[in-house]
Amino acid sequence: MRVYNFSAGPTMLPLEVLKEAGTNIEDYNGSGMSVMEMSHRSKWYEPIHDECLALVRELMEVPEDYEILLVQGGASQQFAAIPLNLMTTGKADYIVTGNFAKKAYEEALKYGDIKLVASSEDAKYTFIPKTKREDFRKDASYVHITENNTIFGLKYHTLPDTGDIPLVADLSSCILSEYTDVSKYGLIYAGAQKNLAPAGVTLVIVKKDLIGKQMPICPTMLAYETQAGKNKSLYNTPPCWCIYVMMLNLRYLKKMGGVKVMEKINKEKAAMLYDFIDNSTFFTNPVAVEDRSIMNVPFRTPNEELDALFIAEAQKEGLVTLKGHRLAGGMRASIYNAMPVEGVKKLIEVMAKFEKEHK
Amino acid sequence: MRVYNFSAGPTMLPLEVLKEAGTNIEDYNGSGMSVMEMSHRSKWYEPIHDECLALVRELMEVPEDYEILLVQGGASQQFAAIPLNLMTTGKADYIVTGNFAKKAYEEALKYGDIKLVASSEDAKYTFIPKTKREDFRKDASYVHITENNTIFGLKYHTLPDTGDIPLVADLSSCILSEYTDVSKYGLIYAGAQKNLAPAGVTLVIVKKDLIGKQMPICPTMLAYETQAGKNKSLYNTPPCWCIYVMMLNLRYLKKMGGVKVMEKINKEKAAMLYDFIDNSTFFTNPVAVEDRSIMNVPFRTPNEELDALFIAEAQKEGLVTLKGHRLAGGMRASIYNAMPVEGVKKLIEVMAKFEKEHK
Repeated sequence: MRVYNFSAGPTMLPLEVLKEAGTNIEDYNGSGMSVMEMSHRSKWYEPIHDECLALVRELMEVPEDYEILLVQGGASQQFAAIPLNLMTTGKADYIVTGNFAKKAYEEALKYGDIKLVASSEDAKYTFIPKTKREDFRKDASYVHITENNTIFGLKYHTLPDTGDIPLVADLSSCILSEYTDVSKYGLIYAGAQKNLAPAGVTLVIVKKDLIGKQMPICPTMLAYETQAGKNKSLYNTPPCWCIYVMMLNLRYLKKMGGVKVMEKINKEKAAMLYDFIDNSTFFTNPVAVEDRSIMNVPFRTPNEELDALFIAEAQKEGLVTLKGHRLAGGMRASIYNAMPVEGVKKLIEVMAKFEKEHK
Repeated sequence: MRVYNFSAGPTMLPLEVLKEAGTNIEDYNGSGMSVMEMSHRSKWYEPIHDECLALVRELMEVPEDYEILLVQGGASQQFAAIPLNLMTTGKADYIVTGNFAKKAYEEALKYGDIKLVASSEDAKYTFIPKTKREDFRKDASYVHITENNTIFGLKYHTLPDTGDIPLVADLSSCILSEYTDVSKYGLIYAGAQKNLAPAGVTLVIVKKDLIGKQMPICPTMLAYETQAGKNKSLYNTPPCWCIYVMMLNLRYLKKMGGVKVMEKINKEKAAMLYDFIDNSTFFTNPVAVEDRSIMNVPFRTPNEELDALFIAEAQKEGLVTLKGHRLAGGMRASIYNAMPVEGVKKLIEVMAKFEKEHK
């Protein structure tokens, strides 16, 4: 029996996508081989790859002056790739709103003069710090933010005003969950394992005029130039299977009506869950209301014993991976695109029952 | 109908492995989810990961003073990771026996004083240059070789004598094809997409005392230390599905009798094909007999038109991806572990028929 999987990532994929991947696993469209077995330069694989890139461009309305790259190493590898490629002035500004934002900041320290413009670490990442255009250095090569904080459940609902300085954002846990105006960014990156695909591929969308200026010490495989232009992310062997499933998943999203339809559903799911928590005197969420993520919803009972008991009870009901990250404790419901409304309703039902029994 | 796929990689996987992966694709062992959907820190995924690492150790008889790492980015990313991690003296020595060996050498030039000890580039990579211990610099941090050349079909059948200098070798296209004495190396690396798994995971086997000495500019995700020890390649989200299929493939190899049984079969397959070519006055292979690869067998007809015709005719018989690499031309039959003896026999049959018709 399929479960409702609230994992922060890797996490649920639409069942239809899994079925399609399974059906073709020994023989893809009469090729006589699995997508896992295909040369990445073959007439069978290339259309999959091209369709994946085209669907990203279409669904995210990526302007023509941006490159779409499929790379490896996860968002964590981008923490180094970003300064190595973009920090042409030797300076960059960072805002720290969570664990991964902090890791990105710390990695950048290796490569130049980094300003920590603002941080909510002292407040245990319960809000997004407000910044003004003057907070950023005029000669910063870019400003880095983590747009959605997976662990503590924060989201930038209004982007910081960085003036002419390119904004670089980690969208790993909110990509394709709602409309994104790509033209507001210099670079967007996202690990696949939340809303895109199985773990193993990382999406980078970068303005073309930022490419090709990497430091001499930049490893070839971390340089955006290597995968851009006519190489179209085929400089070396890509993670073909992950890209194939990503393509199927994007096809499915398109069939469902695209990002704006998904945004409406996601906002409804999140509103249901936050409303329930806010009306409860038993469950709590510590995040400033205006900064709450619609993808990752952390919550707690009054104590750790009840947290553990709740997680165990929920699991019996087929609601799994609800344990919070070790840095945050409590519970966390990640309700990405593939989590159906029914999963959130079931969660609220189980929470209500638990509250009644243990209050 | 399944084909015989002679691709240099990604390439054939055993049908039994694909079947197993397909069976479980919606619900792995009663977890209610696909392996593609599992948190990498879950009780369902961790045993898969641990078994994969344990099978590498068992099948390759990896000594306890070596770490086994699963990373991303392909062998190409290791071209940078190796100097960044190991070049503690600022010097390293390289032997160039093919296209990828040359790329590894060129990447290393970014990071230190690199000696090109020997190259067969002028001879179009038709042989492995002989080297003596005195050819290597005493203060080189390591000596790098590409043990099997995928494009031109060369193989080191006797490792160079590097004395006390650690030997670093790219085994992408020969790993697990025959017995390897791991203790002779400082580091072995291999992209997965030939004998291990679908593309998207890279195996690194490295002596523990070489870990933790990376340069300050080394990106965290390229430092071996990051994935070693108790992190056991789970520092960030690994390519879980690729590792799962790798585990299934290693289980299958173990069931078949392990590396030494595979070596016997592989040598038989290669001998059949080389014997046929050597006895033909129509097909040729340019590689020095003592340096021939048992995994990648390039060959040609008397001219390019016949090459193209042969590739087309073979395809009609279900023998696919026989076109040689653009740098080498002609044909190339990659006959990795998953290529059955029947596939090689069929290829020889089709070659014999073609020779008779076109000689």
